[in-house]
Amino acid sequence: MDEKITVVAVDAMGGDNAPAEIVKGAVEAVNERDDIKVVLVGIKDAITAELKKYEYNKKQISITEATEVIETGEPPVKAIRGKKDSSIVVGLNLVKHEEADAFVSAGSSGAILVGGQLIVGRIKGIERPPLAPLIPTKDGVALLIDCGANVDARSSHLVQFANMGSIYMENVVGIKKPRVAIVNIGAEEEKGNALVKETMPLLKECEDINFIGSIEARDIPEGYADVIVCEAFVGNVILKLYEGIGNVMLRKIKGGLMSSVRSKIGALLIKPALKKTLKAFDTKEYGGAPLLGLKGLVVKTHGSAKAVEVKNSIIQCVSFKNGKINEKIKENIL
Amino acid sequence: MDEKITVVAVDAMGGDNAPAEIVKGAVEAVNERDDIKVVLVGIKDAITAELKKYEYNKKQISITEATEVIETGEPPVKAIRGKKDSSIVVGLNLVKHEEADAFVSAGSSGAILVGGQLIVGRIKGIERPPLAPLIPTKDGVALLIDCGANVDARSSHLVQFANMGSIYMENVVGIKKPRVAIVNIGAEEEKGNALVKETMPLLKECEDINFIGSIEARDIPEGYADVIVCEAFVGNVILKLYEGIGNVMLRKIKGGLMSSVRSKIGALLIKPALKKTLKAFDTKEYGGAPLLGLKGLVVKTHGSAKAVEVKNSIIQCVSFKNGKINEKIKENIL
Repeated sequence: MDEKITVVAVDAMGGDNAPAEIVKGAVEAVNERDDIKVVLVGIKDAITAELKKYEYNKKQISITEATEVIETGEPPVKAIRGKKDSSIVVGLNLVKHEEADAFVSAGSSGAILVGGQLIVGRIKGIERPPLAPLIPTKDGVALLIDCGANVDARSSHLVQFANMGSIYMENVVGIKKPRVAIVNIGAEEEKGNALVKETMPLLKECEDINFIGSIEARDIPEGYADVIVCEAFVGNVILKLYEGIGNVMLRKIKGGLMSSVRSKIGALLIKPALKKTLKAFDTKEYGGAPLLGLKGLVVKTHGSAKAVEVKNSIIQCVSFKNGKINEKIKENIL
Repeated sequence: MDEKITVVAVDAMGGDNAPAEIVKGAVEAVNERDDIKVVLVGIKDAITAELKKYEYNKKQISITEATEVIETGEPPVKAIRGKKDSSIVVGLNLVKHEEADAFVSAGSSGAILVGGQLIVGRIKGIERPPLAPLIPTKDGVALLIDCGANVDARSSHLVQFANMGSIYMENVVGIKKPRVAIVNIGAEEEKGNALVKETMPLLKECEDINFIGSIEARDIPEGYADVIVCEAFVGNVILKLYEGIGNVMLRKIKGGLMSSVRSKIGALLIKPALKKTLKAFDTKEYGGAPLLGLKGLVVKTHGSAKAVEVKNSIIQCVSFKNGKINEKIKENIL
């Protein structure tokens, strides 16, 4: 592979809006950047029909056929083992065989997490690969790690999450000495569950990270830390609640604005400002969640991903490659 | 005690706004309801000075002196054992000796949780008393149980939480056959951490509750369940994140509205509608969190509680007494 080009395999069949929005996102990515090549993985005829709608540099997009599709409800291990010609398995194999730098999919989370480990494989020394999405904060973003890959984690896993998350934020997002915090139920030293109490002294000993101690959930949206370490169950609750509260508040505000003539007129005037504000607080604006600690890059985007999220997720892979994240994780683990 | 009157001991010294807002809330409560008597517990001179500012029925408010104050940072067990004449210890003793039906405090959470168990004591058979606040949903409220009292809970605790929560929602909030759900990271049967997997079949066997299965955090604000069962660490994260996201979104929206002349004019027009909407989604509007399963009622309000929250928390105690919650919990446990 050309070192200056990032090759991204994209699951054209995954998610609620496949293949239309996935293909559109891929086209937008290559039209924006000439250092990206996209390999669309899936049913050839369906992909070709979508591609015909757009103008783009033909050298930047190719198709690799995969005739099967893994559905969201399928048991992950069985699906990965049984559907060898699915877009997820074929896409992950492109990464395994170094024909692609990264694989992006809006398909079944379970299948991507299992497939990433079984096919691409973990970096030697990494105990568990965490899923690490960026979430919006008051003035920027924070990395939430882990948020769904490994429930019932041990303290040694959390220490690896802290290290990998710190490397990611520094080299992909560009935050110098990112502040690393562990999710806790109070700022006081003696608070926490058994896992947090066990992990806390281990994190304090880490010389390579800027560990700032506990963070209460209330302070996550305030942006008090750049890397938010937690086990997957808690991380999943945080991520999903971000989405849920955002959605409900938005609908309530819209409903409230339509409640009187006065507020309806006001609503027209504030629409652009409100839209911009809410967009900044939408988890979908920040691309996909990387599954860190694998030998190649695997990125999970929302099942409901539209073209803009697919595009952002593809472009994110360039920073990951150019930032040499995996090389740095390997050095750190040794 | 007169059965028709609910006597509420109120910690006049607890919280950021004590004693002014606490006393004000007590006065507002007795001015609204003639079936309430409030016993203000704390430093007499300070309370008297505040009471002088208001008109109210003198028979409905009395003072019980307590000369000490437990500060937020103090280690709870030591504070409860050491400060025998603190407003928290004196107030809890009024409940223990049946001189009050309930104790309301905006003071140290830790001290209230520890003191509630040590002084008032658990109902026989209750393994751990959960803290259970009401949180806003799209069109109403849900009871979040447990949210801070017991980390590292066992499945048998969660089953008791589900039962007590269901009784509370039915008899205090007035929801018939409340839908009970357990917080999980996916709707599928095989998902969850060890605790959730162990608790799920036990909840299915409960005949007295309307158990509807798993709830993802995303669906909590949507109002898909009335009683949200979880262990305290997760519950604390949910509660605090509700507050944090609400606060940050509100500030961002306000900031966005001030960004142009157009939106400033719009902001003036929508202000009443927006305020109403955001008020409905403010956790402070729903009174305090009861600590369920104790021999008397203990209610924790926010440290930042203002008069309106104090008033609501006091009035809430009437429904608790009249709904015979503790009698029903006792029957259920047998």
